[in-house]
Amino acid sequence: MKIIFLGTGAAIPTKHRNHSSVGIKYDGEVFLFDCGEGTQRQMIYTDISPMKINNIFISHLHGDHILGLAGLLQSIGFNGRTEPINIYGPPEIKNTIENILKIGYHSINFKITVHEINSKKPMKIIDSEKYMAYAYPVNHSIPCYAYILKEKKKPQLNLKKAMELGVEVGPDLKSLKDGNEVKLKNGKIIYPNDVLLPPKDSMCVAYSGDTMPIEDFGEFLNSIGCTVLIHEATFGSSKKNNAVETMHSTIEDAVNIGKIACVDTVILTHISARYDDNIEIYYNEIENIIKNNNEYNDNNFKIIVAEDLMEYDLKNKETIKK
Amino acid sequence: MKIIFLGTGAAIPTKHRNHSSVGIKYDGEVFLFDCGEGTQRQMIYTDISPMKINNIFISHLHGDHILGLAGLLQSIGFNGRTEPINIYGPPEIKNTIENILKIGYHSINFKITVHEINSKKPMKIIDSEKYMAYAYPVNHSIPCYAYILKEKKKPQLNLKKAMELGVEVGPDLKSLKDGNEVKLKNGKIIYPNDVLLPPKDSMCVAYSGDTMPIEDFGEFLNSIGCTVLIHEATFGSSKKNNAVETMHSTIEDAVNIGKIACVDTVILTHISARYDDNIEIYYNEIENIIKNNNEYNDNNFKIIVAEDLMEYDLKNKETIKK
Repeated sequence: MKIIFLGTGAAIPTKHRNHSSVGIKYDGEVFLFDCGEGTQRQMIYTDISPMKINNIFISHLHGDHILGLAGLLQSIGFNGRTEPINIYGPPEIKNTIENILKIGYHSINFKITVHEINSKKPMKIIDSEKYMAYAYPVNHSIPCYAYILKEKKKPQLNLKKAMELGVEVGPDLKSLKDGNEVKLKNGKIIYPNDVLLPPKDSMCVAYSGDTMPIEDFGEFLNSIGCTVLIHEATFGSSKKNNAVETMHSTIEDAVNIGKIACVDTVILTHISARYDDNIEIYYNEIENIIKNNNEYNDNNFKIIVAEDLMEYDLKNKETIKK
Repeated sequence: MKIIFLGTGAAIPTKHRNHSSVGIKYDGEVFLFDCGEGTQRQMIYTDISPMKINNIFISHLHGDHILGLAGLLQSIGFNGRTEPINIYGPPEIKNTIENILKIGYHSINFKITVHEINSKKPMKIIDSEKYMAYAYPVNHSIPCYAYILKEKKKPQLNLKKAMELGVEVGPDLKSLKDGNEVKLKNGKIIYPNDVLLPPKDSMCVAYSGDTMPIEDFGEFLNSIGCTVLIHEATFGSSKKNNAVETMHSTIEDAVNIGKIACVDTVILTHISARYDDNIEIYYNEIENIIKNNNEYNDNNFKIIVAEDLMEYDLKNKETIKK
């Protein structure tokens, strides 16, 4: 699972930061979180193929999070896609997509299924063989959702134990792996738990959308074993008033939610244009936060400031900057 | 009058070329020709202020020419503009702008007047004190217009001649300058033509939109004294078949129209993504065209390949690349 930051700015794009968008590559698919104007061009500078996108998650309907959708969908159509695409988003997203599809002339010959989420509680929105996705309602000036993508790991087979119990390689072994009990030729019944080890830790990323800090969101992430939190941090903490007024988070807010969530990495994004030429404010503040909170000074808790085109590899816990 | 190339690519953006858009700065205003996705961000790298745009000219309603409008208008609104904006374009542009304004939440508190052009002949669409603009119907797969912006120069006063004829500095002189005859104290009538020199050459730029080559368009530009032609040249001339099939122009097509128009400079733009890593094809072909056409080998006829963020200053006939 690899995160690629396609746009890390806020309402107004800057020299260094495009509008919001994050791509996650996992198991041959691309999952797209928000799609600000210019997202399709940002992809050109990365190894994300727009043709591999099957699911797009829109946090909310502010322009800086959605105005790249028309161009992205039209380009995918232009390139001949026929496979369907799912778009998840808040109430009114169906109308928005309808309006987007009315603009200009295009050749979109694939099905777009829009899933309008209207839930005041966390909600599982995808449950496939290999992953799950949740939507979590957050607290912004208009309806907004955070999204969580969690890999599903199957239990591991303890082959040695299975052999000792007399299971032969073949259909019986496969059946146990799939969670079914089997009856051996000697009449002995073997249960899956006899031969399965617990699954390895699964990778799990949360993307906050635009939001004020919500402690319960941190608790929820902790409960499902989230390891990486991409949280908006529109403002430095000296601008807490602006953050409250515009219903956004500060650096400190975002870090706190990450700590409550017990993730190993918090990545700050959606950074206001005012910091474009003085992003050191973010680094200095992070240094102070770590200095003043002993519990944050821990090799198992990293705070990263997102940059456009930066990649984060969850397997190796490695950041690659361009 | 200064041209700034905001996007010089075609249907699909590339590493080096954004979607179509050209800005012209003149007399404190910005005139915008097409507005592909990402145009507002391209402006950040130039000295164009979106707040100075009063007139936007849309050639046609293909996505690569219009999908930046929503973001541009929303950002202008976000920055508090109250002055009206005019948008000119082909039939259906009113519906397009209506749909664009329905997307997302925004605070556009300025009036947008959409002028839907539906003319099969060249048409004067603006006639102000300082400039004129024309729309010229071109030949693409959907209705499409070229646009021409022409500066209006007043005739120059021949002060020496006026003095000799007995005109005194004051209201009489001003009246003559404004094109009125005056009666002097001695009863003699002085006509404007007696004291006015023809105006200096006015600057005039044409932007072709997407089109197959049209010789009549060249003749028209010649008739109004156009000096710079920005013409699409989507393909190298070896791809003439593709150009015909998709109703575009080749390098040779564009240069020929410029020659018919008797402009001093042709600037090629709307360059297909296939040339992103081998633009030398354009330079080689231009060299050959000049070699094979003696009449093109002339210091008064320049052929330029547009680049993103390139500027062309009409006063000094100077190209500035970034």
